[in-house]
Amino acid sequence: MKKLYVIKIGGNIIDNEAKLAAFIKDFAAVEGLKILVHGGGKLATKLAADLGIEQQMIDGRRITDAATLKIVTMVYAGAINKNVVAQLQANGCNAIGLTGADGNAIKAHKRVSPPTPKGEPGIDYGFVGDVDTVNTGLLQSLLEQNIAVVLAPITHDGNGLLLNTNADTIAQEAAKALSSIYDVELIYSFEKSGVLLDAEDDASVIPSINPTAYSELKETKVIFAGMIPKLDNAFAAINSGVSKVIIGKAEQLQQLIRGEAGTTINP
Amino acid sequence: MKKLYVIKIGGNIIDNEAKLAAFIKDFAAVEGLKILVHGGGKLATKLAADLGIEQQMIDGRRITDAATLKIVTMVYAGAINKNVVAQLQANGCNAIGLTGADGNAIKAHKRVSPPTPKGEPGIDYGFVGDVDTVNTGLLQSLLEQNIAVVLAPITHDGNGLLLNTNADTIAQEAAKALSSIYDVELIYSFEKSGVLLDAEDDASVIPSINPTAYSELKETKVIFAGMIPKLDNAFAAINSGVSKVIIGKAEQLQQLIRGEAGTTINP
Repeated sequence: MKKLYVIKIGGNIIDNEAKLAAFIKDFAAVEGLKILVHGGGKLATKLAADLGIEQQMIDGRRITDAATLKIVTMVYAGAINKNVVAQLQANGCNAIGLTGADGNAIKAHKRVSPPTPKGEPGIDYGFVGDVDTVNTGLLQSLLEQNIAVVLAPITHDGNGLLLNTNADTIAQEAAKALSSIYDVELIYSFEKSGVLLDAEDDASVIPSINPTAYSELKETKVIFAGMIPKLDNAFAAINSGVSKVIIGKAEQLQQLIRGEAGTTINP
Repeated sequence: MKKLYVIKIGGNIIDNEAKLAAFIKDFAAVEGLKILVHGGGKLATKLAADLGIEQQMIDGRRITDAATLKIVTMVYAGAINKNVVAQLQANGCNAIGLTGADGNAIKAHKRVSPPTPKGEPGIDYGFVGDVDTVNTGLLQSLLEQNIAVVLAPITHDGNGLLLNTNADTIAQEAAKALSSIYDVELIYSFEKSGVLLDAEDDASVIPSINPTAYSELKETKVIFAGMIPKLDNAFAAINSGVSKVIIGKAEQLQQLIRGEAGTTINP
């Protein structure tokens, strides 16, 4: 099986022009087949503020109303995605930017929250998508033409609705689906150096974690709470056929790939 | 040779939700290989106004400054392109939305205006692209997967710059380049019923024009001035291998294709 890298970059890189340029250069230099999944960053929030559109929050979670959906579609699929693609081209990396609607790449459904324990209706998050299917045939046809695929965190429901979708989830679902065709390594790059023993100490990276070690770390509460959803996602990916998940700093992409930095999640 | 339709829709359809929905339904129903090129419409102007960004005009021509480029990238490549793609998917037509940067589909260079006759520097239109090359291999690989390609009027220069590019030109260049592979029919759909003998009378459509007839019409000034650039483009396409150019109303797409409406430009 050929190797495929699925690499997710977070909003903090998107928001920083110099860091983004350096990351794009590093990504362009990654050999072999690759997919980049980008988050949204603060550009959408800024545009909404500039337009006087208020962000609706319920229980601390952002709601994607119709006005916000328009904004994230413009910012994620337009501004960010096309600039990343153009920068990759400038770095000698042929790339194509897609939302889930393009070529039916990623189909999702509008999230339906379960009722509360009291039987009240669950939170309506608005135009937020939970992924159903990844079109591996389309992605494969592009990857095999040596085109890097750049996925924006927007999906569609097949009935004409675009849906705001978590970029971590898109990366995980793409990695899982493509692991039937490729030897997939999934890389979550973010602002920290990896999974840390001490959230305040960026040098306390745990180099590798397997399921047994993870249970122990959770039991002894050594891992801070914020990491747990990311790690649960990582193990879900591993359990669905992904060969390896690496969590670490975007600035260290080359080292993450070589296993010289970050935290590697093994089966 | 297989037949390929390259169909351009203008901004007046983009701006009208009901007309756009009807057009998308008609486009989805077109059999065979097809490319849709969409213009921008008034959404970009509206967003610029909402953000307090002034449109710069020189000699009546709009200048694409850096702020305007960001806006057209968001609106054309984000809002319009992705909504058109999602609507096509909802109509059972698998479609993929691209800018020129995506897969290096259309490469352009920033327009350099020649000096004025007085030797003064020409107008700087800003981030406006003139098309150099169309990546026929990429487009063919998508079309052959029965994916309709939806082109936004944004190209790139290969050095990281996105460029605002006239949608008529993109349609023409794509049609010309692909005529080496396909039997291409280029359809320019706009607000009028075709090339008119009398600009004020939508019933005065000239059903077909060949080069001889065109010379006569120009000489006798029967054709109004606004049509001449469109017709010059049409004949340029015909002279570069495009089989047929049809000019007519977007609402009559099916009739245009069947040759029952609009003006057909023949070699």
